[in-house]
Amino acid sequence: MTKPTLYPESGFSRLRIDLAYDGSNYFGWARQSDQRSVQEGIESALSKIARVNIETVVAGRTDAGVHATGQVIHADVPESLESEDLLYKLNRILDEDIRIMKIEKAPAAFHARFSALRRHYNYKILDNNAILSPLNRFDVAPWYKALEIDLMNQASSLVIGKHDFAAFSKFREGATTLRTLEKFSWHRDTHGYLIAELVADAFCYSMVRSLVGAAVCVGDQRFAPEWMKSVLLKKERVSDSLVFPARGLTLIRVDYPDDAQLLLAAAQNLALEVGDLAIAGDE
Amino acid sequence: MTKPTLYPESGFSRLRIDLAYDGSNYFGWARQSDQRSVQEGIESALSKIARVNIETVVAGRTDAGVHATGQVIHADVPESLESEDLLYKLNRILDEDIRIMKIEKAPAAFHARFSALRRHYNYKILDNNAILSPLNRFDVAPWYKALEIDLMNQASSLVIGKHDFAAFSKFREGATTLRTLEKFSWHRDTHGYLIAELVADAFCYSMVRSLVGAAVCVGDQRFAPEWMKSVLLKKERVSDSLVFPARGLTLIRVDYPDDAQLLLAAAQNLALEVGDLAIAGDE
Repeated sequence: MTKPTLYPESGFSRLRIDLAYDGSNYFGWARQSDQRSVQEGIESALSKIARVNIETVVAGRTDAGVHATGQVIHADVPESLESEDLLYKLNRILDEDIRIMKIEKAPAAFHARFSALRRHYNYKILDNNAILSPLNRFDVAPWYKALEIDLMNQASSLVIGKHDFAAFSKFREGATTLRTLEKFSWHRDTHGYLIAELVADAFCYSMVRSLVGAAVCVGDQRFAPEWMKSVLLKKERVSDSLVFPARGLTLIRVDYPDDAQLLLAAAQNLALEVGDLAIAGDE
Repeated sequence: MTKPTLYPESGFSRLRIDLAYDGSNYFGWARQSDQRSVQEGIESALSKIARVNIETVVAGRTDAGVHATGQVIHADVPESLESEDLLYKLNRILDEDIRIMKIEKAPAAFHARFSALRRHYNYKILDNNAILSPLNRFDVAPWYKALEIDLMNQASSLVIGKHDFAAFSKFREGATTLRTLEKFSWHRDTHGYLIAELVADAFCYSMVRSLVGAAVCVGDQRFAPEWMKSVLLKKERVSDSLVFPARGLTLIRVDYPDDAQLLLAAAQNLALEVGDLAIAGDE
């Protein structure tokens, strides 16, 4: 049994694995008994090939139904396993709704979770009761009213920065809700979908979906943009009814520092988590 | 029970219904006992709302696993049923993998199958063993070798025109294989997918998928472009192993004449089918 450790053990290499998945039919990243999880799929495929149990560490612990195009994990594998074929072998074993996009040998100090500088999520909405194309329905949340994108951008800009996002996070014992939201902006793509782009050091549990729901309240003119800021400042958890569904949410990218900065980044992230049971990157 | 007739019966209106579907989980358009079909889904939703059995006539009788973004059907419904809400009511009943895109009252002479002038299909391939994005995997067929698009276009251009496409059609008793292929060309889109566009008056059973398979034989340099023409002329059915899978195939559009020409088009199509049990638009 290879338990994740800060550094790979002797005889093991650390691999950085980039992957994508359609989360529609998974109960999220995290392994759960009797539920189909992405982690279980990946780890059992890796373990089958390695003939030894392999565990992984993930950058963004996506929730049930959430997708990823740029998820990052690391795994320590027996040195003998390093091969060009590993990617193809894994993809042959895995269901088509998970694809390994890239595998590379990582520095020993690389840690998918603790080295990560920031996570990028997108949220996609089809508004105004428009009809959802059957072949593109899996990563979009429909909304019945027309949304005013300018108002949404005004509201979203008011919560950018380092704040306590308790109002926009589902409560989790011991987890910090202090986060730095670097980007939260909306645009309409060429197909008419409304896309939110969010970037933060890490996201609290259900934070993106709560922020999106609040911005929609402004976009359909139930509240003025300033309401968003007042919710943030009150630190009272917004109604669950406002949280947007998982299907529209996709983890797009995880940023890491240059190799020389990996140790420093991990040390800083670990320091932040002392006395804090938060799992960074949750959504 | 409302059986499809050439004209709507008294008290009934003819509706033209445009629809889209993800065919992945359907055994094709045509109703079959004990199998999930698009026709069964649509007709049972219509019948439920109308409280009388409604049958439909389809432009392109797509095969199991084939998709549509621009399928067209007609249905005769009680005049009392004409309502702005019909589209929304249908979409509420239907599974999300079928969407009604538009409903309009059609001239009595409109016939989804017999009035159609031509059908447009696309076929999408991801070549060179590239990794198929999980969120966009449903309407693409993967191929392991890199494909030479110029060779494919050369080969495809050699079969354009009015020909007996017996070599590229699965045999069906009494069905004509004489078709006019107006367009068969390939391009690579911005995401790297190889897209074939095919337009014909109608397609024989499995004709698009056989033509695509043959073009791929040229694209990966097993055969020279001229081979495609020699296969056509020999009229000997190509190997089933060459037929590409349904998943890459999508019915994009059906063209109809102006209202004034509807009757003429239907008469011409009916004349072509005399002594010919072919179901036009099969694929």
